[in-house]
Amino acid sequence: MLGVCYYPEHWPEERWAKDARRMRKMGISHVRIGEFAWSRLELERDCFDFAWLDRAMDTLANAGLKIVLGTPTATPPKWLVDAHPDILPYDEHGQVRGFGSRRHSTFSSRTWWRESARIVEKVSQRYGHHPGLVGWQTDNEYGCHDTTMSWGEEDRKAFAEWLRRRYQGIDQLNAAWGNVFWSMELRSFEDVALPCRTVTEPNPAARHDFWRFHSDQIADFDRMQCDILRKNSPGRWITHNFMGFISDFDHFKVGDNLDLASWDSYPIGFVEKFPFSEVERNRWAETSHPDIAAYHHDLYRSVGRGRFWVMEQQPGPVNWAKWNPVPKPGMVRLWTWEALAHGAEVVSYFRWRQADFAQEQHHAGLNLPGSDELSVGGREAAETARELADVGTLPDSRKTPVALVFDYPTHWATSIQPQGADFRYEELSFRWYEAIRRLGLDVDFVRPGGNLRGYKLVLVPCMMQVDEASLRALQDADGLVMLGPRSGSRDRHFRIPSGLPPGPLSALTGTRVTQVASLRPGLQDKVTGALSGAAIRWREYVEAATEMLAHFDNGDPALTRKENVFSLHCWPDETLLADMMHMLVQEAKLETVSLPAHVRLRRRGDLIFAFNYGPDSWSVPEGIRLILGSSEVAAQDLAIWRA
Amino acid sequence: MLGVCYYPEHWPEERWAKDARRMRKMGISHVRIGEFAWSRLELERDCFDFAWLDRAMDTLANAGLKIVLGTPTATPPKWLVDAHPDILPYDEHGQVRGFGSRRHSTFSSRTWWRESARIVEKVSQRYGHHPGLVGWQTDNEYGCHDTTMSWGEEDRKAFAEWLRRRYQGIDQLNAAWGNVFWSMELRSFEDVALPCRTVTEPNPAARHDFWRFHSDQIADFDRMQCDILRKNSPGRWITHNFMGFISDFDHFKVGDNLDLASWDSYPIGFVEKFPFSEVERNRWAETSHPDIAAYHHDLYRSVGRGRFWVMEQQPGPVNWAKWNPVPKPGMVRLWTWEALAHGAEVVSYFRWRQADFAQEQHHAGLNLPGSDELSVGGREAAETARELADVGTLPDSRKTPVALVFDYPTHWATSIQPQGADFRYEELSFRWYEAIRRLGLDVDFVRPGGNLRGYKLVLVPCMMQVDEASLRALQDADGLVMLGPRSGSRDRHFRIPSGLPPGPLSALTGTRVTQVASLRPGLQDKVTGALSGAAIRWREYVEAATEMLAHFDNGDPALTRKENVFSLHCWPDETLLADMMHMLVQEAKLETVSLPAHVRLRRRGDLIFAFNYGPDSWSVPEGIRLILGSSEVAAQDLAIWRA
Amino acid sequence: MLGVCYYPEHWPEERWAKDARRMRKMGISHVRIGEFAWSRLELERDCFDFAWLDRAMDTLANAGLKIVLGTPTATPPKWLVDAHPDILPYDEHGQVRGFGSRRHSTFSSRTWWRESARIVEKVSQRYGHHPGLVGWQTDNEYGCHDTTMSWGEEDRKAFAEWLRRRYQGIDQLNAAWGNVFWSMELRSFEDVALPCRTVTEPNPAARHDFWRFHSDQIADFDRMQCDILRKNSPGRWITHNFMGFISDFDHFKVGDNLDLASWDSYPIGFVEKFPFSEVERNRWAETSHPDIAAYHHDLYRSVGRGRFWVMEQQPGPVNWAKWNPVPKPGMVRLWTWEALAHGAEVVSYFRWRQADFAQEQHHAGLNLPGSDELSVGGREAAETARELADVGTLPDSRKTPVALVFDYPTHWATSIQPQGADFRYEELSFRWYEAIRRLGLDVDFVRPGGNLRGYKLVLVPCMMQVDEASLRALQDADGLVMLGPRSGSRDRHFRIPSGLPPGPLSALTGTRVTQVASLRPGLQDKVTGALSGAAIRWREYVEAATEMLAHFDNGDPALTRKENVFSLHCWPDETLLADMMHMLVQEAKLETVSLPAHVRLRRRGDLIFAFNYGPDSWSVPEGIRLILGSSEVAAQDLAIWRA
Repeated sequence: MLGVCYYPEHWPEERWAKDARRMRKMGISHVRIGEFAWSRLELERDCFDFAWLDRAMDTLANAGLKIVLGTPTATPPKWLVDAHPDILPYDEHGQVRGFGSRRHSTFSSRTWWRESARIVEKVSQRYGHHPGLVGWQTDNEYGCHDTTMSWGEEDRKAFAEWLRRRYQGIDQLNAAWGNVFWSMELRSFEDVALPCRTVTEPNPAARHDFWRFHSDQIADFDRMQCDILRKNSPGRWITHNFMGFISDFDHFKVGDNLDLASWDSYPIGFVEKFPFSEVERNRWAETSHPDIAAYHHDLYRSVGRGRFWVMEQQPGPVNWAKWNPVPKPGMVRLWTWEALAHGAEVVSYFRWRQADFAQEQHHAGLNLPGSDELSVGGREAAETARELADVGTLPDSRKTPVALVFDYPTHWATSIQPQGADFRYEELSFRWYEAIRRLGLDVDFVRPGGNLRGYKLVLVPCMMQVDEASLRALQDADGLVMLGPRSGSRDRHFRIPSGLPPGPLSALTGTRVTQVASLRPGLQDKVTGALSGAAIRWREYVEAATEMLAHFDNGDPALTRKENVFSLHCWPDETLLADMMHMLVQEAKLETVSLPAHVRLRRRGDLIFAFNYGPDSWSVPEGIRLILGSSEVAAQDLAIWRA
Repeated sequence: MLGVCYYPEHWPEERWAKDARRMRKMGISHVRIGEFAWSRLELERDCFDFAWLDRAMDTLANAGLKIVLGTPTATPPKWLVDAHPDILPYDEHGQVRGFGSRRHSTFSSRTWWRESARIVEKVSQRYGHHPGLVGWQTDNEYGCHDTTMSWGEEDRKAFAEWLRRRYQGIDQLNAAWGNVFWSMELRSFEDVALPCRTVTEPNPAARHDFWRFHSDQIADFDRMQCDILRKNSPGRWITHNFMGFISDFDHFKVGDNLDLASWDSYPIGFVEKFPFSEVERNRWAETSHPDIAAYHHDLYRSVGRGRFWVMEQQPGPVNWAKWNPVPKPGMVRLWTWEALAHGAEVVSYFRWRQADFAQEQHHAGLNLPGSDELSVGGREAAETARELADVGTLPDSRKTPVALVFDYPTHWATSIQPQGADFRYEELSFRWYEAIRRLGLDVDFVRPGGNLRGYKLVLVPCMMQVDEASLRALQDADGLVMLGPRSGSRDRHFRIPSGLPPGPLSALTGTRVTQVASLRPGLQDKVTGALSGAAIRWREYVEAATEMLAHFDNGDPALTRKENVFSLHCWPDETLLADMMHMLVQEAKLETVSLPAHVRLRRRGDLIFAFNYGPDSWSVPEGIRLILGSSEVAAQDLAIWRA
Repeated sequence: MLGVCYYPEHWPEERWAKDARRMRKMGISHVRIGEFAWSRLELERDCFDFAWLDRAMDTLANAGLKIVLGTPTATPPKWLVDAHPDILPYDEHGQVRGFGSRRHSTFSSRTWWRESARIVEKVSQRYGHHPGLVGWQTDNEYGCHDTTMSWGEEDRKAFAEWLRRRYQGIDQLNAAWGNVFWSMELRSFEDVALPCRTVTEPNPAARHDFWRFHSDQIADFDRMQCDILRKNSPGRWITHNFMGFISDFDHFKVGDNLDLASWDSYPIGFVEKFPFSEVERNRWAETSHPDIAAYHHDLYRSVGRGRFWVMEQQPGPVNWAKWNPVPKPGMVRLWTWEALAHGAEVVSYFRWRQADFAQEQHHAGLNLPGSDELSVGGREAAETARELADVGTLPDSRKTPVALVFDYPTHWATSIQPQGADFRYEELSFRWYEAIRRLGLDVDFVRPGGNLRGYKLVLVPCMMQVDEASLRALQDADGLVMLGPRSGSRDRHFRIPSGLPPGPLSALTGTRVTQVASLRPGLQDKVTGALSGAAIRWREYVEAATEMLAHFDNGDPALTRKENVFSLHCWPDETLLADMMHMLVQEAKLETVSLPAHVRLRRRGDLIFAFNYGPDSWSVPEGIRLILGSSEVAAQDLAIWRA
């Protein structure tokens, strides 16, 4: 199903009914509203104006649209931050981040919690039973614009309290962090300082705890909103719209509060954000890389425990990347179908109409700026709606053969302590995903500790801290398990595990890591044996009391195996990574299709989808029965057939 | 005529008379003094010491030199900023910019206006009727070192007042800026915040108004000085010395206060400042690019309504660029003649003698550091003076066949909202200028709304906001008009115009822009038809109800024409740009000379000048009668002949 | 002899005795302790706990280890900075640098001096006569993490006082700095402002004085500690462990306080820090460049007036560079032998055991993290100890044929006023050292003003300010003297010398510099004559009343000679530099060996050492008698023979 984001407050009331009619006519069933409207709902403290939203909700509902209402906590109004400046966040350099855009609040402020609860209470009391309302969105894009963390006095105090709960006594904290090093010992929790603005790097354990603290705060803040919404609005589901490539907080924990996950899919904008090479950036500039959207779909299907939406789908060029090309014709349709193929329940475009004012005036909508005329993206959305109607209800997604374990705290750990400037966990995880997807396989994301039974192949690109649940899940895996570098290299207190890495995993792997090397660009270590290729960026020196499948030039183990568990002791270059995946799928006896760089497959129930990001066409397998498209799939086109 | 900048306060009084004699002897007629001398004129508050300057003025005048006196407001003394710290400016990060160099004041401070008026009053009362005095310079290089804007509380308050005058009511401001977006609505003008230090980008409309506000302040501050000077010093002209490649404020508005414009010409320093490629930087490192000085001469001839000086001419290496090479022999002479060819009344060197102390000790002068011995540049200046005497009085400049419309607010708009990281208006404008100059044509700069009648060809590289006067001037143009990308793409409130871009220009162009794409380096869109080449950086998607002369690969219009108005819908690469200029001059039936990259021509009255930036020699046309130089113009040499 | 850095406070007391035994057994004779232990020695103000250190000292001494005790002033505890926030340093942007790592104190704070004196007094009273104690280390790595300078109010006040002592009156200061320029004149020393956060660059004379002031403070602070230690601990020597490539303060002045110098040798970490090309960085990533350690050994042999240690020797990968590779097998042994060949009395590894916690958990030790098992580096150290025992006592170092004059204030001057972005004094000095070392020659560093008699060749890559002692030393040199660019280009007040550069050196050189050019990357000036090659980065325009040996393309002098003094008037490219050194050694009649890029020789008494950084093997001269190694020296190996 299709949806759209709409801002009745942006347009004269007399246009609402026509907008709603046109939405319905083009095949849109859902509309999200309200998430930035605080200053219109509460003009001054306790001076509420719900009349306009009453009318907007009624107008939309009367047109047959199902409404998702956002809580407006991403945009605290001027009167609120003026009355309570302790709401404002601080950047890492100690500079306050002021009013004038959005997300100018810190999750550490108790005032902010109280005020957020107040407005959520009010809005949900007012609309919780509205007949047009089907669900809620909490806030908007937690963490966007680097807002997971804040570095002010409110944050210091809340962090100290969080530490008191975690460590109970200051001696325990000093011991856990190793504060004896450099005389960093604290006398009490009042002594806790922000882990920043130090002469040289602060203690990485402090920094990791600070990150975890902020991640916890977001999950708690979200739960606070969910509790109010559930109380005041029974029978409606709750979601949050996560932003892509933001791993600053643990999405799985927020997901635990929600009925379904959703995310905001800007495939082209992300090409500038992700650390692609310049060659790749130019290649995918106008279509996006074929794994960017898919990677997130699979991640959020997991965050939503099987249920997810795309809440904001890019419908044309955006305004916020360094360069903002126009998507190639067909891409809006392709992205929409691709989301559905990965299991999305609804794909909702951002936004109905391009605003001709303010920050996002260069961000496309389904309609041209200020007008009632469909844009290119709008016309593609309408075409997709027609095709969807033809194809009918899509079957449920099934469990995939491959699991990828994604671990947010590992992103924080490797960011705090990269040890080599280009050790980027998100990139490693993405490249493993890309390599397995090039073999035509579907992937489920699994959180650490999540059930891994039933997967033929479990990929763990890196998991630095392995708690008991995660260990047990890996022990219980009944398929092959592939562990990447640095796994098990820190204990729960961010120390090197006693007995050396991989710590608790060593019984599974039969290895011990005695040294690690980070390799500057241009350096590499050749790998030969069962695999060929090279280590780049990272290489471990390992003692193995188990089978060695591949080795470095000096004979040291590069790939080891103990029963069903493989360990790779480096960051693989493209050749080595592809070789590794080939070996794994053969061992796991998985049926694969070798795909070119620009084509991907995805199954949903008994349907198989092929997506062609171009530039060359691609031929579907012989003898299949097409439901959509033709046997020669053109660039920026897709095909669907029944398995 | 030639002049020189002189600092009597830097040298023992017994050297002044000899300095003055030597100036006269080498052919210098004008001397600028006093613009940094506040701490010597007012030792403490109200404790003035004019005696030394009395004697210096007399000494210079007695030697026959004509004096230009600068007001000393670029260098407020320590006692002043200590007594009134509200004078100090703030950078965009909220950091105060302190005492210890120059320009440490914000135009928003009322104290600063009062104190500036006080010292200008004092100095002009004292010297307004001095027989040696011929003119005044207000302040020094407004905006230099990023000082157009300041971001402190004084600025916030003054901005709020400026907005109150502009919008009258806060509802009008909220509507104009579209503050409903992200709940940014303000309750009153007291609510106005600085448009910076926000979580993500601030409202571009706010930012553009903030820029315009600061630009207005400079023009007003300058007018305040001019009013005092005119009152106290009748019969003397007033100028300001603008700094090259600083477009942060509207020079035309400051120019309206002045009797003539002047600018500070550092052709080699600017090579490091302008976004040239590295290949170009290396090629022109020791001569400068052959359009840098000329571009500014033509700009300031317009700012000065036909009258301009070079107030500071680079006489050798400077100290402030990233690298500071020695100019090739001959360049100081060439730059001097070139300024005169473009209509300069006086070329004044910075400075008489290289100071052996303080910030600019590595900045050359006409004399070696601390000495009475001419430097290389000094010897070239003396040679030029002799040649000037030989050639005699130069005729007046004439109207040129080509006009280039330059628009400061477009620089601000594209800086605030580049949409593609390399959309730089100053660069676009410079490249258009370069391309037409390569055809041997002279160019007048025209401000938006300025009279365009009589020009065979009018170039408008970009004009984002088109007000009524600008529109009328374009309608009235009787030559060909060439409009570049993004023209007409914002209304007066920085909104996308209703009916889409080019807004008010659409009747002239017959086009409508529905989408824009910014193209990252490496991407391009091929253009074919009447022109060949490629779009880089920027491409528009246009619907044309008029003639299409060239198109992109997908058939969309790249160049359109409606009657005398051409529209280019992209940023042209070098080939496309050259091709476009060729087409235009043919259409306009202009006589051209195809020049190599290193040679330029310029006419003044019936004289034709050729300037050769090297490295190869260039042959003048056959059959002409040379007034200066030889028919084979060597590298770093020039020739003059009569038309 | 070998030593090791040990942190008893990091490990349970029951492990100390075994650690000490294992140290002795592997051939370690010295142990450094205590330098970061303040928070364990003084738990709260005046609440001391020496018991644990008593026991640690006894345990180590009883095992036969000689103890070096560090004063703990690099790590002020939390209770101290909370009670006295005036201790904290400020960065150049005005931001306080807080508690949470190390070196969070400014040398300008009187409180900090008082508190430092107090703890040094306490510790030295307690342990000054301990039988195991052989020496003291003051503080730890002065200046590390950019801590030489601080930019707060305490610093401003102390700077003003320092200036009062230096200039006596404010008129003298105004005159010296040339404050008349830009009205920067001060009324009194209270007016002195920090030379930062100005609108454009501050006065370079002020900035240079500020740097010198901070350098003086470090020498004075160190002397304060030395005075206390000498009083309380007679018969023990004192050293300080300098950090490599930190030239922010004058190490010679600190060295004057000390009995011997020591330095912290991280050869691989420095590869990322020094401005090598990327090609060089990759070539030397896993061995270090063959001159990095040697350069420092020779420098600190001079700082220590003949006596030096390596206090911290890299024993494997570190944690603090951008990339941190594992050293190639053999390098830990090679670096150890190399230090000894250059005259080190002791090479002390950092650290006994890799800590499994806190900031440096990724920094190798002689033992694996938290364990009693030798690392690769530990095993190489043990092997080296055995070899050392075989070779026996090493003879004394002898005076070398070549002297290199190194001048810290020139580093400050060229950093403040590079004039070309890549004029880096440290780099110039290093490249001259490298070029002469490629000819197999040993080098002594000599401070400005140090005795140069007896050296066949004196290299002065650059000495901007030449005081009387330096001039006299150069006049007295009886070998050849080679002066590099910019020498003599500033007087003591940071002014261009009257009579132009090289100022006081002009009688020696017979030259006068009238102009200087900095050349951007890609530009060069060809040099021909007695030398061939090119000037890059920097070129001077010189008038020579003496012999010209080589010239630039325009015929100007590039290399001049007057009697025994040569002057090079540019930054030489690699070819020109090598050519210059060849010419000089021939003129000086020095016997040389042309070495490949990866091999270096060094003599100690009658022993000759060859070090091969690889990758190719190298054959020792025929007919020599090897003491260690084989005639074909493998990569990462060494050989020793008797001369």
